Amino acid sequence: MTQTVEFFFDCTSPYTYLAATQMEGLAQRTGAVVQWRPFLLGGAFQATGNRMPASVAAKGSYMLADLQLWARLYKVPFSFPKQFPIDSLLPQRVACALPQEQVAAAALAMMKAYWADGGDIQQAEGLRPILAALDLDADALLAAAQSDAVKAQLKANTEEAVTRGVFGAPAFFIGKTQFWGNDRLEMIEAVLSGKLEVA
Amino acid sequence: MTQTVEFFFDCTSPYTYLAATQMEGLAQRTGAVVQWRPFLLGGAFQATGNRMPASVAAKGSYMLADLQLWARLYKVPFSFPKQFPIDSLLPQRVACALPQEQVAAAALAMMKAYWADGGDIQQAEGLRPILAALDLDADALLAAAQSDAVKAQLKANTEEAVTRGVFGAPAFFIGKTQFWGNDRLEMIEAVLSGKLEVA
Repeated sequence: MTQTVEFFFDCTSPYTYLAATQMEGLAQRTGAVVQWRPFLLGGAFQATGNRMPASVAAKGSYMLADLQLWARLYKVPFSFPKQFPIDSLLPQRVACALPQEQVAAAALAMMKAYWADGGDIQQAEGLRPILAALDLDADALLAAAQSDAVKAQLKANTEEAVTRGVFGAPAFFIGKTQFWGNDRLEMIEAVLSGKLEVA
Repeated sequence: MTQTVEFFFDCTSPYTYLAATQMEGLAQRTGAVVQWRPFLLGGAFQATGNRMPASVAAKGSYMLADLQLWARLYKVPFSFPKQFPIDSLLPQRVACALPQEQVAAAALAMMKAYWADGGDIQQAEGLRPILAALDLDADALLAAAQSDAVKAQLKANTEEAVTRGVFGAPAFFIGKTQFWGNDRLEMIEAVLSGKLEVA
């Protein structure tokens, strides 16, 4: 039976970017399917009373160094953006407007633009070239992102995440079991490869 | 050259207990020396404005399940204590009163008593049998724990930790680089085995 990992992501979360770069390798090594599920991290913070790590100054400083270490360990580009945090509404709606099989590539491209290349992914102008480079119809997609159906879907995803216990990002589920953070990928792989059982 | 990992621990922190159970294996696999450094997590919270994870309800629920998963992955006993949080002043002073070569065994025994066996490590009565079982002179040690020199040493350790950027537990240092959390042990091992360079 194919195992599924639900991956709740917000493109504006740095640890989510790092985890996102590892999803293809994880799937290849374990045979699991990764289901990419856009949600609004800000909505989860608001609903749960959680705060950004950087709201504690010492944690923020640590995080900056820690992110660089992970990026070097993963051998992926990383450069902390000048503008942070940013509003994730538009990129998350774009991810919601795409069919599942196109979400991973688009989300990775948006995350890489923001977390490695200094790009702006808050606005349509910044997103258009990123989407076009993936051979997507950027104008149609940006229009779809503003549809009531997509707005409602992103809201529903966020509410579902919070109901299932999500308070931060990235958040993963294997069945009912939540795993929080890029630093749970090792544990997730232990589960997918049968070394650790979960409910 | 022998590498050293400084391990800032507080016996009343659950992720610190989990990490502590892994220190001997880490040292054996990498040849590194682990320096056990008692500090007061509560003091670091106070100095940095950080909060216990459980102060966010959803994070607290997640943590309970996550701790159990780590314990199963590590194959170590774990049972969340009825009383939590507790005052760590006395066990941390006891750890401070011991010579370095005796700290690991005593700290592990105190942590196991609290995090696996439902023991009380806040009070001298609870600590006495734990220390005696290690063939330590419990009465002398508990008296030393109340000496001005030991009180000052624990205060100094806590201040040093905060000055060096510690805001939670467990906290590790390799040279100047901090690693926060049981979930950084994989990264620490990558550094100690030469797969990742730090300053």
